[in-house]
Amino acid sequence: MRSLRALCAIAFAAVLLLPASSRGQSREQVDRYRRGAEAEILRELAGFVAIPNLASDRPNIERNAQHLLGMLRRRGIEARLLETPGAPPAVYGDLPSPGARRTVVLYAHYDGQPVDPAQWKSPPWTPVLLDKPLEQGGRELPFPGPGQNVPEEARLYARSASDDKAPIVAMLSALDALRAAGTRPSVHLKFYFEGEEEAESAHLRESLERHRDLLQADAWIFCDGPIHQSRRMQVVYGARGVVPLELTVYGPSRALHDGHYGNWAPNPAALLASLLSSMRDPDGRVTIAGFYDGVRPVSDLDRKAIAEIPDVDAELRRSVGLAHTEAGDAPLPERILLPALNVRGLLAGRVGAQAANAIPTEARASIDLRLVPDQKPDALRAAVERHLAGQGFFVVHDEPDTASRLAHARIVRVEWKAGYPGVRAPMDQPFARAVATAVADAVGPIVRLPILGGSVPISTLQDTLGKPVVIVPIVNHDNSQHAANENLRLRNLWDGMVVFSGLFTGLAAAWP
Amino acid sequence: MRSLRALCAIAFAAVLLLPASSRGQSREQVDRYRRGAEAEILRELAGFVAIPNLASDRPNIERNAQHLLGMLRRRGIEARLLETPGAPPAVYGDLPSPGARRTVVLYAHYDGQPVDPAQWKSPPWTPVLLDKPLEQGGRELPFPGPGQNVPEEARLYARSASDDKAPIVAMLSALDALRAAGTRPSVHLKFYFEGEEEAESAHLRESLERHRDLLQADAWIFCDGPIHQSRRMQVVYGARGVVPLELTVYGPSRALHDGHYGNWAPNPAALLASLLSSMRDPDGRVTIAGFYDGVRPVSDLDRKAIAEIPDVDAELRRSVGLAHTEAGDAPLPERILLPALNVRGLLAGRVGAQAANAIPTEARASIDLRLVPDQKPDALRAAVERHLAGQGFFVVHDEPDTASRLAHARIVRVEWKAGYPGVRAPMDQPFARAVATAVADAVGPIVRLPILGGSVPISTLQDTLGKPVVIVPIVNHDNSQHAANENLRLRNLWDGMVVFSGLFTGLAAAWP
Repeated sequence: MRSLRALCAIAFAAVLLLPASSRGQSREQVDRYRRGAEAEILRELAGFVAIPNLASDRPNIERNAQHLLGMLRRRGIEARLLETPGAPPAVYGDLPSPGARRTVVLYAHYDGQPVDPAQWKSPPWTPVLLDKPLEQGGRELPFPGPGQNVPEEARLYARSASDDKAPIVAMLSALDALRAAGTRPSVHLKFYFEGEEEAESAHLRESLERHRDLLQADAWIFCDGPIHQSRRMQVVYGARGVVPLELTVYGPSRALHDGHYGNWAPNPAALLASLLSSMRDPDGRVTIAGFYDGVRPVSDLDRKAIAEIPDVDAELRRSVGLAHTEAGDAPLPERILLPALNVRGLLAGRVGAQAANAIPTEARASIDLRLVPDQKPDALRAAVERHLAGQGFFVVHDEPDTASRLAHARIVRVEWKAGYPGVRAPMDQPFARAVATAVADAVGPIVRLPILGGSVPISTLQDTLGKPVVIVPIVNHDNSQHAANENLRLRNLWDGMVVFSGLFTGLAAAWP
Repeated sequence: MRSLRALCAIAFAAVLLLPASSRGQSREQVDRYRRGAEAEILRELAGFVAIPNLASDRPNIERNAQHLLGMLRRRGIEARLLETPGAPPAVYGDLPSPGARRTVVLYAHYDGQPVDPAQWKSPPWTPVLLDKPLEQGGRELPFPGPGQNVPEEARLYARSASDDKAPIVAMLSALDALRAAGTRPSVHLKFYFEGEEEAESAHLRESLERHRDLLQADAWIFCDGPIHQSRRMQVVYGARGVVPLELTVYGPSRALHDGHYGNWAPNPAALLASLLSSMRDPDGRVTIAGFYDGVRPVSDLDRKAIAEIPDVDAELRRSVGLAHTEAGDAPLPERILLPALNVRGLLAGRVGAQAANAIPTEARASIDLRLVPDQKPDALRAAVERHLAGQGFFVVHDEPDTASRLAHARIVRVEWKAGYPGVRAPMDQPFARAVATAVADAVGPIVRLPILGGSVPISTLQDTLGKPVVIVPIVNHDNSQHAANENLRLRNLWDGMVVFSGLFTGLAAAWP
């Protein structure tokens, strides 16, 4: 086995000795290769998403890692597992390109979000091909046989079909296309595939530090997240950070009849409502003192980039039944340049037919703060706690005991979850410009998004390794990621191959 | 069977021909009778609470009604079912007292609140006797044999042990004690036992109207609710009304990733929090214009009555872990003279480990308004809707369709549930004074509460029949009514017999 693998690697490296085009691999070459290989590419992706991939499901997450090792080695990439105690392994690969000056690491993750099978139309780890989206009445298609093709609007349904196994298959298939065309990447490539991104990347920092030497590189490309809602490919220069928290406000220690004791015993649900409305106005502006400290004004370059982004707000609003959006219908890309306080959940007593005539014992809110660069998580945590205290609440971090409840009129428990700051690269930084140029050369006009509204742990990469990071997503925005019926639009997989082959071949020339 | 029953009735009526004491049956006589009959009384109550009694469970609720008919007829009371289409029957009884001038109807209900068996220590309809309360480590006692006694702090656990089957057993056992002493009631007695009080008394008005002739009487005694927290017996002159409502505020029609779309798409949980905090300040004062219209100032008689009520606030606060109560620690009896807006429940998205990074599609609040007399439910409903509109919300009563969502920036759905106004009798009205005198003569100092914080449908009685109503509760305040592990303190059952025998024998003399 081992000698066969070595032989493959040599053969592949030999093929790659052919010179790279200076302006990237042409779209036509990649599309031609892909049209002949759709069956194989889909079979590889379907086989990969068929392995359950919760970070907490150790036997299956290890199966994913082994499977991925095989996918890399089959292509002559030198691959190994990077172990960190208590964490799923990261899968590492190294593909030097003779003559290249620079090294780029491609990041993706192979673990997926938890599933609630009851909400899925088909089992989450049983890949199903539909001719169009489920909500448009999509009907099942057979997987294609060798040489057969599939409509490009078809979708593959499975957990992680989009987030985040599609980019892995797209980048490896792009390498296959290069090999078929006798072209080699213009930079040395390394691969770092994380196995617990959906579990808050709890060991990412430790893993990067342990394997710092292996991960020597000039820059990282972070392959995660959806493309623009206009369906244009996009390059993203940063991501908002995130600081999740849970608030609990207390009422009587046992539920009291709200007729006999209403407007005598404090009502925690009403207190929580007042507290939340003191933190954020109905139009989304956060009213916590110090919250906006360090938030940089929108730069001219940001404005220029936003002006070039296709305006999808009206169509988006219609598609989700909204008559207006916050802050006087300010455009989405501008809104996500600002930090946010999102209320993700509220719970107190019961509503509807289950509602009892009772003052609840507690009321809870689940919140996340979305941070833009230069906001410090610790400073925000302190600002939030100061605000809570300023509203007359005694702030605790554990369940208050009876003595504490009897000593303080109003108590709020704050539970801080792991989080990380926002980060972004200047859009005119050389690597950032090179990525945008290589992608646009390959696929045509792209969206240059100053910052991703969602949060990915690129701050951990930058803090630990100090190298520039740019986000290059390829999957459709309407992919139900994190929810039931996650799906990948096949056209995005095909275009993703064009994006990666363009990056591999075009990056060196665009990067002075 | 029929002739035997008739014979019993005649025999019982004959016994009751003996003259009533002018100042009520003595406590000693009732207690002496009871000490010899504890086993029989508890057996009767246990047999009654062993029949599941949800108003919606038609076969079982009919079994309750039949069982109760038997309990009345065994005592020579002429009894029948009063049917109303679509409703559980009311159980009616008639016990004339030769020579009496006036007629009093005793109201109680035999249906109970829904149960969540998972939260009960023992099955809800399997009566269990404990030597003290569950939370104090109560241990099971065997039911007593004939002539045996039970500690008076023992408690009977079962759904409706307290609410509201205990008063029925107490009043019938009081009649047994009278008969044993050869004493007859000083007023004609009628009995009206409702079978759907816990289902909002949906057919009570219709039932009273249908059977108006049978229910001719001078006054009603409403036997429901708990006694005072000091454990003194109490007489109550009114009850707050109730108007329940559900509010739903809408966000995007499908949950959106709150990173990518946070502070662009309106967040319904945050909107609901702002809306609720616009309706009620953190200290319980309702901030809806017009809400306090018609609320009468506290009268001198009210103040005098409150001053005479034992002050249990500090002990109550300690027992439920509260460092303070609303409105600067104003006393409970004063607080329930005012109307209230209680938030019973909140629900949006998920909290804790289940929280997803999503903007929820809707947020819900379950509310009840507690009304004092002279507040009109319809006027309050209009005031609430005006307030919601004033906060910029388009008010609807059904699920909004897409066109409606696209036409209105902020939509709130209001679902009004059946409710009824508050009501009270002047404390110096002749019947009200007579009840207080008769009860106090029998059991010693009582609490005279101007109004019950909870709501019972006495407004329906008064509106329909136009007769005075006074509330005479007998069960312990710490009875977990409406919740799991409902229980009755036996001392309250025994004292309840004294209350009823005192009323039956002493009412005429105290009532000019």
